[in-house]
This record gives sequence, C-alpha cells and structure tokens, in this order.
Amino acid sequence: MRAELISVGTELLLGEVLNTNAQYLSRRLSEVGIDCYFQHTVGDNPSRLRRVLEEALAGSDLVITTGGLGPTMDDLTKETVAQFLGLPLVLHQPSLDRIEALYRRLGRVMPPSNLKQALLPEGSTPLPNDRGTAPGMAVLKDGKMVVILPGPPSEMVPMFENQAVPFIETTWAGRLRPLVARVMRFCGIGESDLETRIRDIIEHQSDPMIAPYVKAFEVQLRLSTRASSREEGLGRLGPVERAIAERLGGYLYGFDEVCLEDATGRRLRSLGLRVAVAESCTGGWLSKRLTGIPGSSDYFLFGAVTYSNQSKISLLGVPAATIEDNGAVSEETVQAMAAGARAASGAEIGIGITGVAGPGGGTEEKPVGTVWIGLSGPWGDEAKLYRLWGGRDDIRGRAAQEALVRLWRYLSKHAPR
Amino acid sequence: MRAELISVGTELLLGEVLNTNAQYLSRRLSEVGIDCYFQHTVGDNPSRLRRVLEEALAGSDLVITTGGLGPTMDDLTKETVAQFLGLPLVLHQPSLDRIEALYRRLGRVMPPSNLKQALLPEGSTPLPNDRGTAPGMAVLKDGKMVVILPGPPSEMVPMFENQAVPFIETTWAGRLRPLVARVMRFCGIGESDLETRIRDIIEHQSDPMIAPYVKAFEVQLRLSTRASSREEGLGRLGPVERAIAERLGGYLYGFDEVCLEDATGRRLRSLGLRVAVAESCTGGWLSKRLTGIPGSSDYFLFGAVTYSNQSKISLLGVPAATIEDNGAVSEETVQAMAAGARAASGAEIGIGITGVAGPGGGTEEKPVGTVWIGLSGPWGDEAKLYRLWGGRDDIRGRAAQEALVRLWRYLSKHAPR
Repeated sequence: MRAELISVGTELLLGEVLNTNAQYLSRRLSEVGIDCYFQHTVGDNPSRLRRVLEEALAGSDLVITTGGLGPTMDDLTKETVAQFLGLPLVLHQPSLDRIEALYRRLGRVMPPSNLKQALLPEGSTPLPNDRGTAPGMAVLKDGKMVVILPGPPSEMVPMFENQAVPFIETTWAGRLRPLVARVMRFCGIGESDLETRIRDIIEHQSDPMIAPYVKAFEVQLRLSTRASSREEGLGRLGPVERAIAERLGGYLYGFDEVCLEDATGRRLRSLGLRVAVAESCTGGWLSKRLTGIPGSSDYFLFGAVTYSNQSKISLLGVPAATIEDNGAVSEETVQAMAAGARAASGAEIGIGITGVAGPGGGTEEKPVGTVWIGLSGPWGDEAKLYRLWGGRDDIRGRAAQEALVRLWRYLSKHAPR
Repeated sequence: MRAELISVGTELLLGEVLNTNAQYLSRRLSEVGIDCYFQHTVGDNPSRLRRVLEEALAGSDLVITTGGLGPTMDDLTKETVAQFLGLPLVLHQPSLDRIEALYRRLGRVMPPSNLKQALLPEGSTPLPNDRGTAPGMAVLKDGKMVVILPGPPSEMVPMFENQAVPFIETTWAGRLRPLVARVMRFCGIGESDLETRIRDIIEHQSDPMIAPYVKAFEVQLRLSTRASSREEGLGRLGPVERAIAERLGGYLYGFDEVCLEDATGRRLRSLGLRVAVAESCTGGWLSKRLTGIPGSSDYFLFGAVTYSNQSKISLLGVPAATIEDNGAVSEETVQAMAAGARAASGAEIGIGITGVAGPGGGTEEKPVGTVWIGLSGPWGDEAKLYRLWGGRDDIRGRAAQEALVRLWRYLSKHAPR
C-alpha cells in the first residue's frame, strides 16, 4: 500500500515550527507495512490544500493529514477534504458531548466556535481525542482512505497509535507486511571498526536487513525484516542477532530503547555498587545523565562539579601539590579526583573527568579537546587520555559519554553477567 | 516572490532522518522576503521528483531542492532538474579541481564516481561547497530560479547563507521586502500574564507584528516588520521595543540569541560575583547550563550534586538535624544547602535546589513536582516553593530554569544596571 502525508499549517511554511509529525508518521507507516511516497506541507489555504489532496489521492491508497482541525476560521482541513470527496459535514453528537464535558471539567462554557469541531464528514469513523478538543476521523471512499489527525504531536501521536493504526490494520488486514525491527546498541566501539568485525555477516545477509547508525555518540545496528506477524519477524531476526552478539558482546550494552545510563544503572543496582562523580570540563553533564534515570538515588551518591582548583582540593581532597606539579588536566589529578569522590562519598566507585572543553584554555601540550577520565573502584584504578574534537558542547557531551562507557566496561569486565 | 521547497531522500520518507532543512529554509526565505507556499519531500526517484518539480515550477518563482547530490547512482536531483529544463550537464573544471584537492588533502585519490559531482547544468551558477564534495548550483530559466543544495545541514546551511542568499538578493534586487525581526526574551513571567500587561500595545499595533512564543521554559516576544533595509526595519521596531521594555523591563533579560545562563553569567562577571550550586533533584542540570558558557570558570566555582542525605551533610555542612526534622525537601534544608555551597566554596552566592522529580518518591504532603529553591548571597537569603508538573525531565528542567531565574532576578533587583 502507498501513502502520502499532508501537513497543514502556515506556521510550518514560515519555519516557526519544526515538522516532527512527518518523520514520526513516515517511520510508523513503514513499520506498519505501508510505503510513504511523498510528504507535503501546505498553509492554511483551502485551494492549495485541494491541489495537493487531489494529486495525493490520485496516486496513493492512504492520505494522512495533520493540522487544521482547530475551532478557528483558519482551520479548514476537514472542510476541504469533505468538499473534495463530496461528503456533507454532519454533527457527531458524542464528539460534541466530549468537547462540552472537557470545557465543563475546566470550569468553563464551550465557546460556540468549538461546535465546528464536532462536525464530521458523513460516513466517516470518528477518532476520539484524549488530549484535546478536536476529534480526528478516517474516511473510506472508492478503496482509498483519508485519515485526518490534529497537528499538535501530543494529540496526534496517541490518536494515531491508539485509533488510526488499529483502524488501518483492520481495514487492510492481510494486505500489510509490517516491519519487525530490533535495535542493538553498542558503546566503546566506532562505526567502521564495528562494521569491519561483522562485514561477512552483513554481506551474506539480505533479510533481515542490517543497518548501522551513529546516534548521540554511539553506534547502533538496526535489524529489520518484513513479516506477517511480530513472532515470525522476531524468529527471523534471532539467529542474526545472536551471531552479532557473539562477535561484539563486549560492546553490546542494550536493545531498543534502553540507554547507556539506564543499562549502567541496572548493572550497578544488581551488583549493589554505588557511584560518585567528580566532573570538571563536563560541568555536571555526567551527573545529569546518571540522575535522569528514575530510582538512580539507589546507586548515585553524589556528583561534584569542581570547576576551580580550590574546590578540587577542598571537596575531593586532591592534594594541592598534585595540581601544581601536573596541572588540573593530568593523569595524576584525574586519579586523585576519582579516588577523592569515592572516599568523600563512601561510594564503591569514583569517576573523575578533567579536560579542556574550549574554545579558550588550550595549550600546545594540552590542546582543546584533551580530556582525562579516571575511575577508582573495587577492581583497581585506571585513567585514560582522550583527544576529542568539535565545539565546546561536542567535547563536553562526548567526554560524559566516554566516562559512562568506561564505567559500563569496568563493570562488564570485572563482573560479567 | 513565491517559493517551494523539495527535499529529496528516501531516508526522509522512511522517517529515519528529521527534516530540519525545510524549517530552516522556510524561516530564512521569509526573512529574505520570499513566501514559501509548499514544502515537498520525495524519495530518490526521478519520476516522482519530476512530478513535484513540474508542479512547483508552474506555480512558483523559486524552487529550492536539498539532497540527492552525492556521488552514487541513487543521487539524481541535478540530473532530473537538468533534464526537465532541457539543459545538458557539462563539466565544471573548477569544481572538479576542488573535489580532487579535497581528496588529496585527505591523502586519498578521488574515486571516479565523484566525477559526476563536477557536472553542472549548462549556464548555471556554481555554488561552491566549503564542507563537502558536492557543489550546489543556481539555474535561471524563463524568469524562474532553481537552487540546488546538498542535503546534510552542515553543508546546506553555509552554502545557502554565503552563496544562495546573495545570488537571490542580487538577481531579484528591489523585488524583495525582507523581514527584520528582534526577539525579546523574558524570564520569571508566564505567557498570559505577559500578554495581559501589554495587551493595549499589541492591540494598537499591526506593523511591527508582535508575536509571543513559549520556548524551553520561557516566553519570547518576536517583533517583526517588512522593510527595504535592515536600518529602516529596526527604526520601526525601536519605539515598540522600548514601550514593551518600559512595562516589562524587570523580566526582560536579553535579545535574539542570548540565553539566560549567558545573560546571568555576564551580570555575575561584571559585578565580580562568583557562584556555587548545590543540586539534588536537578542532578547537575543547573551546573551543566551554567558551565555551558565559554569562560564560565570566571564566576562558577563548583556544583555539588548531593543526591544522598549523607552528601548534603558531609559536602555542604547541612546539619543532620535539619534534614531529620524537616525532611530533605524543605525550606530549612534548601537554605542550608545554599548557605553551605556558598561557605564551602568561598563564592559570594550559593544556590540550592531540592525536590521530588518523580515518578516515585512523592507523598501527600510533598507530591511529585514539589521543589524548593534557595539562594544565599550578599543581599540576603531567600527560599521559594514551586509546584511543578510533567514527567521527570520536565520537572528537572523547569526546576533548573527557575533557579536560574531566581539568580537573574536577585542580581537585577539588588544591582540594577
């Protein structure tokens, strides 16, 4: 089946709003088993919407619109679609009741302009809106389907997932080949190194497809296949996944939505280990990531953002002579920071980060991007030098990532599952 | 003048990549003085690209394409446009020299497939690429203009700004009415309160336009007007800007690209004050924002992410009895955290944040979203209770923002410029 998307809204054409709906729907349609051939964006203008709608319906089985369902005069998506399909708009009493109830709950009276949101093209299937006033709808005509969704992603996404997808899957049962995918997430290995190590697997493989991605400082492999059921698909992914895990298990930290701080936190909790962090150039980034996980207070004791030398000395007990003799960005200082965080907190593991994030502060010996990461723990202490590149936030973000990678690998190496 | 955008790339239709180019170009076209009527996305498919191109050129003066300029067989944007316009592709020697030189600099030999990137439609104006191999181009035919740009934003943006915009402005000199805009950035005031206070100004005003936006926890006002020069435009914005600043000066922290941590950092530096931060629920977010500004080591001494009670006691000197008697999330504890950060660091100002970010840990008395923010400084100590809502990261991000707002307002109140 073929689909086209039409995003409606002058704010999109002015560049005031980033169109995340088009990406979301395209990705999900591909997963559901429908090929998206075009994405269009038009303003709140019925004649231009009509032009795009006409072409889209001529070439595709499914047209999904987003936006233009509000109560104002500008909002004309539904009216334009209904007119184009030759369907009158009729009052849908349950939708009206729902909108009125929503206003009552807010202690207000529904403005008369909202009445128009309860009008639906005759014969269409209403898609109730759990997060706002505008219902969506699905219209079937001459073997084609038009699905009309609201513009705000907070309303569009649940309506699409909970109502539109089941409607499409029911209507076109047996005619879709959904995509079943698994994402394998790696850390501590670069894209080309990873590809080299599994090149033969990739080359001898066409189904499932194996696609590498580089995202937010890590490499991911996406295994995907089209199948008539999720079970069938997973059955095809399994052997390839296991073959890759066998080669690259030392770098594989999780699957699908699990992020590195989450995977690391789970390991810490199951091992009964607690961590404390001493950051300089990353300025709290590592602490922010670790504490972003609900329940992280079980294993995160404290973070110290020791920007000044004085705070390294007074908070972490780094000897003044260590900084004087070796500099704040040095192996000796980072080891003292990691050990100091550990000692000061009573945590089993201490992590230290110190470096030059730039744009100023670099020297010939220690240019911008020079970062030391240290770790002190029950299986010994270690420190490693990194040469990172990019702007200030690239260096800071990458350094926080590398510190997490060190922690994850330290746990994996000394306490394998 | 009217424009349409065509984004080319199958990865966009699969939802693998978010199309930020369309937003960027739409916003910039509006600023340059050109109305964008449609945005389209098509895959790497010449016949579908041709269909969109034909319609776009029929209805608009300017068509901008992005993507499909790579060296592979899939990349067919330039070929499709040239064929549609009836222009042969000819070798552009300076572009070829440039690509070969780029490869030489990398110590490699140019693969023969890259030769195709140096072919340009006859009579077109090459737009050199400072960041990659594919040159862009601008083609004029029958009063219409087609601008062909590469897909990666890191290549597209500088090429558009440095080459395409000057080309468009020169070609259509006198026929464009560029948008001149200023963004006024406020903190510590909500959207509806802000709008109420300047309603009369907004209502008596059609040019410049005044549009409020809510972005990343703050309210912005965008003043804009169309003018034949930047000076003329700014002259029209000035009086309105001053009238608004007179009403809302206490909340106005900056203009255009200046962010709150930058504005606050500049105030700290000019006052010769230094700050230390003690965070609990925000987990380092405030430290991360403050240290994101280059040179922040001038005024940021340290941050302590004191997640455990023990770390509040040992690092910040919060009395154990204060936590026992009042709880970790309380006015007394947050004041002790702020004062402790100040005392431990020797900074002139200490900030404390403690709260319940959720999803767990809430009680009837202190539900998820309860956050205390405290400040200790040369003009006295203060603490304030917030009831924030949303998910864990909404609460954490908002709490870090409110702490920055408190700091900025403390400085503004006691040391006005």
